[in-house]
This record gives sequence, C-alpha cells and structure tokens, in this order.
Amino acid sequence: MSNEKIPYKIYLSESEMPDAWYNLRADMVNKPAPLLNPETHKPMTAEELGEVFCDELVKQELDDTNAWYPIPQEIRDFYKMYRPSPLVRAYCLEEKLQTPAKIYYKFEGNNTSGSHKLNSAIAQAYYAKKQGLTGVTTETGAGQWGTALSMACSYFGLDCKVYMVKVSYEQKPFRREVMRVYGASVTPSPSMDTEVGKRILAEHPGTTGSLGCAISEAVEVASKDPGYRYVLGSVLNQVMLHQSIIGLETKAALDKYNIKPDIIIGCAGGGSNLGGLIAPFMGEKIRGEADYRIIAVEPSSCPSFTRGKYAYDYCDTGKVCPLSKMYTLGSGYIPSATHAGGLRYHGMSNTLSQLYADGLMEAVSVPQTEVFAAAEEFARVEGTLPAPESSHAIRIAINEALKCKETGEEKTIVFGLTGTGYFDMMSYEKFHDGKMTDYRPTDEEIAASLANLPVVE
Amino acid sequence: MSNEKIPYKIYLSESEMPDAWYNLRADMVNKPAPLLNPETHKPMTAEELGEVFCDELVKQELDDTNAWYPIPQEIRDFYKMYRPSPLVRAYCLEEKLQTPAKIYYKFEGNNTSGSHKLNSAIAQAYYAKKQGLTGVTTETGAGQWGTALSMACSYFGLDCKVYMVKVSYEQKPFRREVMRVYGASVTPSPSMDTEVGKRILAEHPGTTGSLGCAISEAVEVASKDPGYRYVLGSVLNQVMLHQSIIGLETKAALDKYNIKPDIIIGCAGGGSNLGGLIAPFMGEKIRGEADYRIIAVEPSSCPSFTRGKYAYDYCDTGKVCPLSKMYTLGSGYIPSATHAGGLRYHGMSNTLSQLYADGLMEAVSVPQTEVFAAAEEFARVEGTLPAPESSHAIRIAINEALKCKETGEEKTIVFGLTGTGYFDMMSYEKFHDGKMTDYRPTDEEIAASLANLPVVE
Repeated sequence: MSNEKIPYKIYLSESEMPDAWYNLRADMVNKPAPLLNPETHKPMTAEELGEVFCDELVKQELDDTNAWYPIPQEIRDFYKMYRPSPLVRAYCLEEKLQTPAKIYYKFEGNNTSGSHKLNSAIAQAYYAKKQGLTGVTTETGAGQWGTALSMACSYFGLDCKVYMVKVSYEQKPFRREVMRVYGASVTPSPSMDTEVGKRILAEHPGTTGSLGCAISEAVEVASKDPGYRYVLGSVLNQVMLHQSIIGLETKAALDKYNIKPDIIIGCAGGGSNLGGLIAPFMGEKIRGEADYRIIAVEPSSCPSFTRGKYAYDYCDTGKVCPLSKMYTLGSGYIPSATHAGGLRYHGMSNTLSQLYADGLMEAVSVPQTEVFAAAEEFARVEGTLPAPESSHAIRIAINEALKCKETGEEKTIVFGLTGTGYFDMMSYEKFHDGKMTDYRPTDEEIAASLANLPVVE
Repeated sequence: MSNEKIPYKIYLSESEMPDAWYNLRADMVNKPAPLLNPETHKPMTAEELGEVFCDELVKQELDDTNAWYPIPQEIRDFYKMYRPSPLVRAYCLEEKLQTPAKIYYKFEGNNTSGSHKLNSAIAQAYYAKKQGLTGVTTETGAGQWGTALSMACSYFGLDCKVYMVKVSYEQKPFRREVMRVYGASVTPSPSMDTEVGKRILAEHPGTTGSLGCAISEAVEVASKDPGYRYVLGSVLNQVMLHQSIIGLETKAALDKYNIKPDIIIGCAGGGSNLGGLIAPFMGEKIRGEADYRIIAVEPSSCPSFTRGKYAYDYCDTGKVCPLSKMYTLGSGYIPSATHAGGLRYHGMSNTLSQLYADGLMEAVSVPQTEVFAAAEEFARVEGTLPAPESSHAIRIAINEALKCKETGEEKTIVFGLTGTGYFDMMSYEKFHDGKMTDYRPTDEEIAASLANLPVVE
C-alpha cells in the first residue's frame, strides 16, 4: 500500500470541527433564481414561506448574501454524538482496481438514520423548538429522512408527524418501527387525516400513495395547526446550508494532510448531499482560488441534469408548493417502477441547477445495474455496504480511477458515501438474482412530461 | 454539561491502536478447565481439534501461557477500515438521568455486520487463508456472526458456507441478502446437504431448525472436506482472545484522559463481547494492580451465570462438540419463545465461568421488558439504536447511574454497546405494542434440564 503516512480514516478532533455552515450562494456570481408563488408567479415572500416553514429557516432559505452561519451550540453538541464523520482512504479499492489514483470517500452512514439526512434534520428541529412550536410534519418515502427527523425531534422533545408513502409503510415495516422507537407518529399516506388524503382516496380507493401526495398531506397538517411547521429533507437552500458540514469537514480533513483533490463526485437526487459536499470547493472555484472537476451522478432513469430542461417548474406533483427554476423532467415525471433506490425526484436544487447552467460542474447518468455492480465490488473490498443512492457516486469514482489506470495519472478522487444499504436489501436481491433491468426514458417520454411546465413570464 | 475537556467520542489514532491481542488466561491463577472429548472424557488434543478448526486457532485455543499475541499486519489493516471503535461519553444520558455518574460506552456497531463479531471473524478467516484452505463453514441464527464472517471471507477471497436456522432464513431475508452481497452461500438449516440434516428432516419434516442443528451441519461439512474448517463466533477462548481488542482500545482511550473506571458492564450470551471488553481490566485485577467491579448481564429467561450450575456440559444440543466446564442450564435448555433478541446460549465461556466461580466478577439477570425500556430511553437521548443484546448492559448501566444519583457518588461506569438494532425491529415493535412478556424459568424447569448433564469423573 502506498503513502503509509495517510491513515485509513481521517477523523477531525472536536476542536477541529467546523463551527459555522457555509452558504455557497453568497459567493455565487449568478444567484439561483427566486422561488415563485405558484398562483401569482411573484417571488415568495418571507411571510408567505413562514406559513409553512419556521421563521429562522425562511431567513436562511432567502439569504444569498451572508456566507457564514455560526452553528448553534445545541446543534454542535448533537453533531458531536455522530460527527465528525470519517474521511476514508479507499486503500483496498485502489489495490483491487490497480489504479495509481488516490480515492477518498466521506462516509455519512455512521448514525442510526443511516445517512447524511440527520445533519439537516437536527438543525430544522432545533429552529422549530426555538420558535416554541409543538412539532413538525414531513413526508418520507424510503424512510431515511423520516428516521433522521424522528431522531432529531426526540432529542429536542418535539412532536413529529411523518406521512409515509403507503407502499413503503407496508414494505418497510422496520423503517417505520425505527421511527416509532424515537416517538414519531407514522401515518400511511394517503390517509383520512387530511382533506387532500380523503380526496385522493375517494378518487383512487386502492392507491399505494406517492411522495407528492405525502408532501401535500404533511403541508396541509402543518398549515392548519399554528403549533406545527412543515420540514423538508432535500432540494431547499436551507438544507444545502446545513449539509455544508459534509464539505467543510471533508476539506478540513484533506487540508490536514495537504491533500488537494482533482475530482469531487456526488450522487444527485434533490441535491442536498452533493450541494453539501461540494460547497467549500465550489466556493474556491468561483473565487478563482482553486480548480476542481465536480461531477453530479444521477440515475439514467431519472436524468434531470443530463436530459431535463432548465426552467421554472412545480416542486411537487400536487402543484401547491412554490415554483423553482431548476433542471426538471416535469413535475408529473415518475421514474419507471423498475428503478430501485432513491434519487427519484423530477427536479433538482435550484442552486445546483444554476451552477450547472453556468458550466461550473459536470453531470453524468448511469444505469442501475452498473450502479449495483459497483456497490457490490466496493462492499467486498471496503467492507461497508453502500446505499444504492451513494453507489451512483462509487460507480463514477471507479470509472475515473480506471481511466487513471490507463493514463497512469495519479489523480486524487473524493466522493460522497452518503449512507448504508441495510434497508435496501430487496434491491440487492433483485440484482443478485439477475432480475434487475435498466430503464432509460425515451426522448418522447421526456418531451411529453416537459410539455406541462408552467408558463412563467 | 460537565467536564468539557473530555470529548463526546474518544478515538484512538492508528498509531495508538493495540498491535497485540491479550490472552487473559495467561494471568489467571486458576486456569479454565480443559475441553474434554465427548466420548473419552479426556482433554481434547490439538490433533483432535485440528480436524475441525484451523491449526493456528487450535494453538490459540489451548494456550493459557502466552499473554500477548501480535496481531498479524493483514488483520491490522482490515481493523483499520472500521476500527478503532469510538469510546463515547454518554453526556446526554447522564443529563437525562440527572446523575453525578460518568457514563462511557464502547460502541462496536459502526461496521456493516453491525456488531463486534467482525473482530474475530477477520482473524479466523485470516488463519484459514494462511493455512491454504478453500473455505470455512459456520452456522448463524440471527445473522450477525454470519454477516461478519461473510465480510471477512470476501476480503480474503475465501469460500464461506453459512447454515442459517431455517426460521431466521425465512424471517430475516435482508440478513441473508447481506451475506450474499459478500459472496457467501447461505443454506437454510436443516438441509439435504448433510447426513444430519437429512436425518432431522426425515424425523421432523416440518421443523424450522435450531442453532444446535445448524452447528451440526456446519461441522459435518467441514469435517468431510479437507479444504474446509469450521469456525465459531463465540464461547471459545480463541474468540475471546481476538475480542480483547475491544478492551485494549477501551483501556487505551481511558488512559489517554486519565479516566479510571469503577464499574465495567457487559452483556453475556456465550461471553465473547464481555470477555473481550473486560480482559485487560481483569488482568490488572488479578495481578492486584487495580480493582474494578465487573458485571455480566444476562436475560432472566436464560440465566446461566445466576441460576445455572458450574459443571462439565455439552456445548451443543447435538452433543458432538467437546465438553466444557462452565455455568450451564443444560445443553437441552431452550429459552422461552417469547424471549426476543440473542443471548440464548445455554452455557458460557469457560474462562468467564472460572472467573465468576473465583469471585472476580458479578452477574445479574434482567427481564426483557426492562431491557427494551432502557434501549428506548438510550436511543432517544444518545441517538444510536442499540441491539437488544447490548441493551442488557445499558439497563444495568442506567441502574447503577441511578444508584449514584441517590448516593451522590461520582462513579465512572463503562459498558459495552456491542451492536445496532437495525435487524431487531420486530422485537421493538412487540415492545411498543405492549405485546412483549417476561419469562423466568421455574426452579423445577432448570433442575429438569440440569438432570441430563454428562457424568464426568
């Protein structure tokens, strides 16, 4: 093994941990386009957003000026229970690939929620508590976000109402039970708790639900009770702000050993993990202090960056949330049912969308069988069983490392390993048994879905 | 929060990690009684053991003289991928309990197998590889050991045949799939692969299997193929030797901050985690260099220490394995089906049994509803969702901390948190729904089970 001086895992000490989040938008030359009111098409005001979100989070959402947000002590204390997360040198993977490349990954799965989602969940719960609220509502699909939020709410003694897509509620009873351990109430969606749920159930009695419907239910419940607000685990700027802890820790760990990455890779669904990982590096790039190749990896069955349109669109299928200018496949786009794992969102963070439009980052899409092959190869040599989402980044990291093998270049590759695959074994089983197929929407399908974009003057 | 200087998590650096395992038996005044051949009742020879186990592991098993075993570099490299495990200061739990006690736990769940089992799995796989074997066989119940061994075998390119108790195979398909990701073959036991399996299936066509039967199948397969050996995840001295890494790291981390524990607590099934955690502390105690209260915690439904007999007994229900002198409930003892989680073994490590007989440690048993209540309390403030097994130690740690609250004593409590509860959500659900009951065998039941102990002259 080369380079003995760098340990397998670089841990920051508590005193080396970042004490502020970094707001990348402050350094962007072209700011992301504002969220628009879905009815008036005028920029959303703080007041309007405050009906759904906590006041402090609204402030963060709208702020593209202040670069640094000190992390409140209560949140730093919680972070200390599971952070810093390790930056791991993938010595065994390098050896297996026989590549001169140096590969590092930032592993966010060492907490009970199993992913990076906890970084923002604890922040959002904190601000809700600080505002004197009784609780928060949210939706969850696969359950990572719901679990993270349950943990965060339990810590601050906050009520947590989770609307879980009915099919997941039934297929993933363990995820549901983890949330219950943390005291959350978990309701299969659509439910009879809400007007929108009742309406959908009346129209489609046998429906197994959708994320769009669960969002609508959670938003409705929060809007009707002044003691509650709605919280969201991805896409939003406030979430990317909190997730900057990933990139800041990564950068601090690399700096400690004078390591300069050449390529930074992350998977992209709504963009929270990728946005968090790249934030400080992108800041340097924008300010002209350094140059990096930054690559977003998305599934070929949901290719918003690589085949979507940069335009204003609805954030939810119910069309009640604000409009956001982003790379989108159309709010009615639903990836094929054959697609395993997450990264199913039709759009993308508006900040990342602006950066991509400005040519500051690349994007690539990969078919899922190649993703699972990379996941298995990684697990067998590096030990950790990766989440399918994270494995999109593994796939491209391996591909780039193999290019280095051909050219002989000793590039340094950093990727985000956002979580563990414990709760995705059904997909792994499909892959193993040769029952997993790839899906790529046709140009016609995407065009049809994009035909319904809202017209914004 | 008091004592700001001690971080939430104490991590050793790579250079501070132990480079040798500690063999506690070398320092014991009364050595554990030897294993006996089940037919002749004479001490098992290295040759006899070598038919089933790897040569180097046989040597370790029989050695009660050498205190230190240097850890081979290949194993240390693997350890670096998931070790050192953190020693966590339970600040939030202390605050919740309002206790002056200082509570620490050594968390072994931060690896894909989810428990401490990997520490010995990688060692056993290494020695099998070194001996030039094709592969190893083993049994698994809940699946933690099978997962750990699959990971270890995959790392060294060794074939891994796991016999999984049929009921678990069917009820825990995710565990099975994790093993398959790592390339193991997983066979529901009893199977038609073996003579013993065929015999049992002929006698009990509808059986859902048992650990005892799975052991017999794994041993048979290993005995019949010279390229294979059988490996075991607990009970044996070799396993306790490898698991000493837990205690050595714990001690190094405590020493770094000049922390002297008063009480050390671990859960006890076969004894591998407890034996590993306490090893260096018990060594000091035996040598008169320090004094500690050391407490083994077992389920009240399977109370081998607290209500069993110290005598020679069969290690397996099939009575094919060597006899061991240990605290036992009788090899036919099966805890009530209402008992959730692990720690179901009828006996105990013979080393720990000798230490307990010599008055060097205490033991206590707890009913499972109290264990799950502690687990939930812990999860909600400390974040990590604990395994039911580990939660036995949490229960007693909390009890001891509450005693300190009454007396005002600032005791330092250290306990082992051996793993995560991800795969035990069915038990958590039962607890939540108020459907979990406690079970305590009657004196008559235990006496009846003990009536069948082998007569050893």
